[in-house]
Amino acid sequence: MHRKLFIPGPTEVRADVLEKMATPMIGHRTAEATELQKSISEKLQKVFFTESDILVSTSSGTGLMEGAIRCGTAKRAAVFSVGSFGERWHKMAVNNGVEADLFEVEDGKHTDPDEVDKVLKTGKYDLVTITHNETSAGLTNPCAEIGEVIKKYPDVLYCVDAVSSAGGMKIEVDKWGIDVCITSTQKCLGLPPGMSVTTFSPKAVERAQNVNIRGYYLDLLMVHENVKKNFQYPSTPSIAHMFALDYQLDQILNVEGLENRFARHTAMAELVRNWANEKFEIFPAAEFASDTVSCITNTRGIDVKELCSKLNDVGYEISNGYGKLVEKTFRIAHMGDLTTGDVTELLGVIDGILGI
Amino acid sequence: MHRKLFIPGPTEVRADVLEKMATPMIGHRTAEATELQKSISEKLQKVFFTESDILVSTSSGTGLMEGAIRCGTAKRAAVFSVGSFGERWHKMAVNNGVEADLFEVEDGKHTDPDEVDKVLKTGKYDLVTITHNETSAGLTNPCAEIGEVIKKYPDVLYCVDAVSSAGGMKIEVDKWGIDVCITSTQKCLGLPPGMSVTTFSPKAVERAQNVNIRGYYLDLLMVHENVKKNFQYPSTPSIAHMFALDYQLDQILNVEGLENRFARHTAMAELVRNWANEKFEIFPAAEFASDTVSCITNTRGIDVKELCSKLNDVGYEISNGYGKLVEKTFRIAHMGDLTTGDVTELLGVIDGILGI
Repeated sequence: MHRKLFIPGPTEVRADVLEKMATPMIGHRTAEATELQKSISEKLQKVFFTESDILVSTSSGTGLMEGAIRCGTAKRAAVFSVGSFGERWHKMAVNNGVEADLFEVEDGKHTDPDEVDKVLKTGKYDLVTITHNETSAGLTNPCAEIGEVIKKYPDVLYCVDAVSSAGGMKIEVDKWGIDVCITSTQKCLGLPPGMSVTTFSPKAVERAQNVNIRGYYLDLLMVHENVKKNFQYPSTPSIAHMFALDYQLDQILNVEGLENRFARHTAMAELVRNWANEKFEIFPAAEFASDTVSCITNTRGIDVKELCSKLNDVGYEISNGYGKLVEKTFRIAHMGDLTTGDVTELLGVIDGILGI
Repeated sequence: MHRKLFIPGPTEVRADVLEKMATPMIGHRTAEATELQKSISEKLQKVFFTESDILVSTSSGTGLMEGAIRCGTAKRAAVFSVGSFGERWHKMAVNNGVEADLFEVEDGKHTDPDEVDKVLKTGKYDLVTITHNETSAGLTNPCAEIGEVIKKYPDVLYCVDAVSSAGGMKIEVDKWGIDVCITSTQKCLGLPPGMSVTTFSPKAVERAQNVNIRGYYLDLLMVHENVKKNFQYPSTPSIAHMFALDYQLDQILNVEGLENRFARHTAMAELVRNWANEKFEIFPAAEFASDTVSCITNTRGIDVKELCSKLNDVGYEISNGYGKLVEKTFRIAHMGDLTTGDVTELLGVIDGILGI
């Protein structure tokens, strides 16, 4: 039995998108590959509201996050964390010998733009990382406001982990001043995992040129140089994902429409939030509650593991709390191509199981 | 029109394998994911004739090669190169600040086990990299003999790039003393690109524990620790490739049979070599000519680019020479699930185009 996925990635993938994963292979050094990869780049620029170049990586979002902090930090990185994925970004820096400091907040709190300002005023940092949407807390950071702060520091590169939000929430990369905005295929874009994409601003290119040790596979400058030549990649990319991504971007841009897609994510989130506010509590403050994944405080003291297991038995999958939030919270993701109908159906089943 | 791929990756993928790429998604932290990834590991151990653990990476083979030289070198790496992919391995070390020396040979020559011995005698090195099958030269190195040499140096880790040979040629990892044996899905395994796999010996684990700066996404020790726990991965893997790989490994092991698969690759290679010896020349010395890709010296002074283009027009794709061997050579790959019938068909078409 296939279980419908309400976990924060991988998300459900529509049958017509899955089918594109089975497209017969082409050579990755052909004119067709250039055409395909150029097409993807142009469409992703629309999704990200940017004129920056687009880089695609055959890796999870983690790969591009590592590439970004390693290739983008010449001096010292300021990593603002609101949960597990912020901590991961700091660990990536440390594991590569990149100088970085971790700025954490209490569980469920957001990154305060004033705090970013205070940190940058020290003049110690030339790169900031922000988690746009933290799936462990179901929280969305005010990336536009943080961008306004960072604009005051022209030497600081602004890197955003938008892995679980881009394509489901509006992120205006150029307007917000983001240099590197990273997402993965298996979240709001509604594709299988295995590929990640990022925007890469001229400022990011210039910075990387001033960093000596950038590695190889995740050296974003080398990837960028190849892309500028003919939209091809230094190593063989996942062509199956390329075909599916190109197709899905057409669906997103031309069939559903970006604004409709964002509105659908909001509508799904509101269904879950209304339900949660009635029967449990939403974990983060209301103004920062995410439109792509809801983290719900277990105010009833239910056995979350048992709920997840009973949902599995009838064909649904949700997530327990992440890390130290296990059993204290549970998470329902509403991203990608799920519908308000799917969400209503799930909430009804949960009510039935819990008898609430 | 789909063109049949006789290039050294991506190779042709059978329709039933492609179909598995379209399997509906499952969560990557579920018992099903553990089961799937355990199944793949056990089957790959058979393909590699090893009891070493298997690590899977959502990256091209390049990613794992970088991870291996970075995590495996505590002192200094000796990179033996017979072409472009050996040079790449050296560049990966340099780009990560890993101490390494490059030992090159003349174009078309193999890595001499005696030369490896001479280099290791200096006591400067604790890791050796060898390209098993160099697609730019159509050459297979004597990895078993090199392994015998390396066995004399118990502190030296033996890393092999088997990207374009494993699954098509017999590589006895444990018998030959290989610690890290890397391949990609899009070559002899007959799957789409986007995933790579490696063996990882206890000695490789121990070495990595003594290397401080190993990165994150390509930190093979962290991957290994996760795999040992429950066959899961630190980041979301390409589940589509996992499904297709698991299916294809059954076909390889149980339907065709490994020995039959190796024999088919030899038979395809002999067809091409006999044809080439009659009408052109095989680029490397006969005893080192590869069973998975033939590099043919352009003794007739044909316009290789034009030949490739005319083949494209009628539905076939072969490769020009690589790098400085362009036009001086051309390459016909015979790997994965191509058959002797496919090869005979291609050679007939080439004869027709060239009027030879």
